[in-house]
Amino acid sequence: MTFLNTNEETRKRKFKKCMSDTCSAKTLKKRLPILEWLPKYKTEFLIQDIIAGITVGLTAIPQGIAYAVVAGLPPEHGLYASLTSGIIYVFFGSCYNVTVGPTAILAAMTARYVSNYSPDFAILAAFLSGIMILVMGVLNLGFLVEFISMPVISGFTTAAALQIAASQLKSLFGLSGSSGDYFAESVYNFYNNITTAKLWEPVLGFGTMVMLILLQKMGQGCNRTDGFFKQMRWFISLSRNAVVVVVGMIIAYVLKVMMDAEPLNLIGDIGGGLPKFGWPPFTTVVGNETYSFTDMMNVLGPQSVALPLVAILESVAIAKAFADGATVDATQEMIALGLCNIIGSFGQSMPITGSFTRTALNHVSGVKTPAGGITKVLLITVALTSLTSTFYYIPKASLAGLIIIAMFSMLDYAILGRLWKNSKRELFVLVVTMIVCLFAGLEYGIVTGIILEAAMLLYKVARPPVDVSITKCQKADIMLVPLSDSVSYCAAEHVRRVVLKASLHTLSETLIIIDGTSLRNMDFTVASNLMSVVKDLEKKSRQILFMNFNSQLKNLCTDIDPKSEAKFVNALNAVELSDQLTKDV
Amino acid sequence: MTFLNTNEETRKRKFKKCMSDTCSAKTLKKRLPILEWLPKYKTEFLIQDIIAGITVGLTAIPQGIAYAVVAGLPPEHGLYASLTSGIIYVFFGSCYNVTVGPTAILAAMTARYVSNYSPDFAILAAFLSGIMILVMGVLNLGFLVEFISMPVISGFTTAAALQIAASQLKSLFGLSGSSGDYFAESVYNFYNNITTAKLWEPVLGFGTMVMLILLQKMGQGCNRTDGFFKQMRWFISLSRNAVVVVVGMIIAYVLKVMMDAEPLNLIGDIGGGLPKFGWPPFTTVVGNETYSFTDMMNVLGPQSVALPLVAILESVAIAKAFADGATVDATQEMIALGLCNIIGSFGQSMPITGSFTRTALNHVSGVKTPAGGITKVLLITVALTSLTSTFYYIPKASLAGLIIIAMFSMLDYAILGRLWKNSKRELFVLVVTMIVCLFAGLEYGIVTGIILEAAMLLYKVARPPVDVSITKCQKADIMLVPLSDSVSYCAAEHVRRVVLKASLHTLSETLIIIDGTSLRNMDFTVASNLMSVVKDLEKKSRQILFMNFNSQLKNLCTDIDPKSEAKFVNALNAVELSDQLTKDV
Repeated sequence: MTFLNTNEETRKRKFKKCMSDTCSAKTLKKRLPILEWLPKYKTEFLIQDIIAGITVGLTAIPQGIAYAVVAGLPPEHGLYASLTSGIIYVFFGSCYNVTVGPTAILAAMTARYVSNYSPDFAILAAFLSGIMILVMGVLNLGFLVEFISMPVISGFTTAAALQIAASQLKSLFGLSGSSGDYFAESVYNFYNNITTAKLWEPVLGFGTMVMLILLQKMGQGCNRTDGFFKQMRWFISLSRNAVVVVVGMIIAYVLKVMMDAEPLNLIGDIGGGLPKFGWPPFTTVVGNETYSFTDMMNVLGPQSVALPLVAILESVAIAKAFADGATVDATQEMIALGLCNIIGSFGQSMPITGSFTRTALNHVSGVKTPAGGITKVLLITVALTSLTSTFYYIPKASLAGLIIIAMFSMLDYAILGRLWKNSKRELFVLVVTMIVCLFAGLEYGIVTGIILEAAMLLYKVARPPVDVSITKCQKADIMLVPLSDSVSYCAAEHVRRVVLKASLHTLSETLIIIDGTSLRNMDFTVASNLMSVVKDLEKKSRQILFMNFNSQLKNLCTDIDPKSEAKFVNALNAVELSDQLTKDV
Repeated sequence: MTFLNTNEETRKRKFKKCMSDTCSAKTLKKRLPILEWLPKYKTEFLIQDIIAGITVGLTAIPQGIAYAVVAGLPPEHGLYASLTSGIIYVFFGSCYNVTVGPTAILAAMTARYVSNYSPDFAILAAFLSGIMILVMGVLNLGFLVEFISMPVISGFTTAAALQIAASQLKSLFGLSGSSGDYFAESVYNFYNNITTAKLWEPVLGFGTMVMLILLQKMGQGCNRTDGFFKQMRWFISLSRNAVVVVVGMIIAYVLKVMMDAEPLNLIGDIGGGLPKFGWPPFTTVVGNETYSFTDMMNVLGPQSVALPLVAILESVAIAKAFADGATVDATQEMIALGLCNIIGSFGQSMPITGSFTRTALNHVSGVKTPAGGITKVLLITVALTSLTSTFYYIPKASLAGLIIIAMFSMLDYAILGRLWKNSKRELFVLVVTMIVCLFAGLEYGIVTGIILEAAMLLYKVARPPVDVSITKCQKADIMLVPLSDSVSYCAAEHVRRVVLKASLHTLSETLIIIDGTSLRNMDFTVASNLMSVVKDLEKKSRQILFMNFNSQLKNLCTDIDPKSEAKFVNALNAVELSDQLTKDV
């Protein structure tokens, strides 16, 4: 009773604390981190934030266009995505390194709904994901992503990288036909259409890939703080994505002028200017069919759960990786990410999350505060308002090369060897996740992986190790059944069976002791089963005792079977208990 | 390597053993238990089996008719259900006490599909459930029902009893209108139609209930082995279900002759004769619509999983309750139950499982072998072939009274008080399960309960207690983090956070020791997180050591980060370890 009251007290205190926390200035700063860092802003931060913003922006533009293409959207949507979210994150983001925007995986997950329906589905997906992420953030449900294990993440990421790379084979070789929604379909289409391959596309595509690798190597050993030449090498290397796209554009333009034709597939017309602001599309028309909100929800289906989960997973993982050992406020990151998606969807943005490549870039460029994002946003605004006619000449093959190289960095071979050596069970989970991702779609794969891991975990919990031991004593032997830390309802029947089975192998005078010394928790189901064991054993005239059950657990048992009261005893160990009993007799 | 080979060996041996087991005479007897008990049959068993068969049969007939009514089926289907299954269980059943047939819960779960569609759906449900149960039996998947905890079972059973009792209010009061598919709907309809109540129906219905209670009390203290009068009292008490129905029939007949009209709602014409044997209905016609197999499957939907699960649950629970401490061969019980349903569906049977009432009756009647079932089957055959014209006069009010009384015995009030006192969490699970059952249907309720319990369990596994302690030592303090038995992937982030957080409250020279002494299992995800803790702490120049990790766990970690090799140490305890280190320095 006292125990319950104390609990009540603690709860009340926690509630009060929670209420006052919600209203304090400290909380305001926590929820609007710009209030924390802006007053402390120093002029020397400015130059570093600007440099970082430029390198990130020079990558965000080609990547934004490329990922819009991956998602099957008009290229400008990829730029819109970095625009609004970039501004929102400056206000709400708690990790100064992180930059948000479109990512390859979210683009690939959106693709199916765009290619089979319309771009409106991508914008609605961003809005809905934003709502889900915000709600999960506010309700502290971020822990849900902890149920996605590393093997599942690894299988999912590898499959995503393969799927995205495969979808670019069409553009890389300039093939006719469609590229396909799945990895398997893309590979199949590639094989079927390989005879339609052109000359200039693969030359430019593979050229782009070689250039990217060389530019990366060029930057090695150079640093932001080095001398001018090394500094330039460092800067060009970091901006390599922009460099290869510019080179591709020049080649396309020169070829056009020289041949008086367009031998390369180009991005073509890009809708210039800033995005139109307005409500996200809650109804849409595809072909002749009007889709109501419910119809659109039905189309998005499992995506509406998988997309926000993956967005949270990516963003929190990135925040943690670049936190330099500081603790990450996952709740705040989720609130920021949710708002970025919601408000972004009012500006025609596709779903966004933290970008690994650009965050890493931000980090090595020496960013100091989230203000770095402002430069990036300005750069993209310039691109949208005055460069779209130039973007006309971006060759699709250049983007394909850029995307494929980016995907290679997402592959993780090392984990395969580690799991093969140490845990074949987890390797199995990885492979199953990957196969389902490749052949049924990314969202089904990740959900399959999560369920498979959870099922395996539940099975393990249902079969806790019970090490029955038999000790010879002076008078009667003892069969000792130690119960572990916590026995759950699903293990109740298992424990019952183990005790009954073990008792069959002992002499009838052997004393059976259930040792609850280290038992902290026990369900009603377990208690009921233990009491039924007593009845089963008494029918065979066997003696059973419960040793060192704490009072709460004992009460639970005696509530079920009041006659069992006398069977609960305390002792230092089983042998002492046996000696006591023998003396009594 | 040796370890792996040994594993391989064991697996081969197990496989061989499994193969030879499958083919041995012992296994044949296990899978066809009649081969075990029939050769040992003694003549003195015969009389006891016959008496038990008669009492069970006299209950199986009225209950069969009543539960067919609950399911909304023509009454004869309830008798068909006891017929075929009764024969099959004689051959395959491993528990001599158990009798199978229609049960109130399965009938209630079938009702919705019958009342909205056609009886064919009940027969197909029996066939499909049989297949599911058989497959689960053969694949040893019976353990799945261990994931249905007592609170879920209790909430489900209580809701089922309430729903079934409520559905009988219409017949009990002779109301017009429909009775409703749900508890809430039935109560609402009862309230709306109460003004249409008749006189004779409630009189007979409540009379039946009073009679049942009195007849039950009459048998108390009497026994099969007593003198003639007491023996008769005992027998009549056990056959009370048949007695009240016969009394009802006589009253209905007398009223008809006296008033020259039918003032009571009667069962009416029952299709006489044995069931027609043939394939279960894989297609059917409802109204003007033809349902293909796929359409029928779509209609059955979640039922096709919930029905077999509940059937297994009921039958295994009953087998265990009446096993007298013997271990129950759950696999064999599932095989028998599966075959009973499959073959039964060829004889127009509704879904069946072990019946608690009739099994208890069988037990107190002193049954000796499954042969008792033969008498029951003969009795039902007689009923079907020559008594159906008499059954015309069974008043629906009598059946309603009989069903309502049977439902009262299913209510379990005691568990509510026990859970209130000991585990409010489990009470919550019970209440949620019950509410969903009452307002959305039994199958949704039980699935909700299972998922809720599993989610709570997973959350608990994701938040294992980590008791960080700080010990003062000569040179430097020690922060000790003991890891429990098994840390799962979903707890990885939690452990990481606890360690990082606790380290913030210690001095920078404090030695951090992760104690793996009692750690048996660790996922790849956990190992990765531990290695990332090392990196995080090293950035702050903190010293961390891993104490007493077994070689397998150590290998997993050093595979991820080979540089951590030196951090793994063995010691008796943390203080000894600290002393060692100080000496070294």
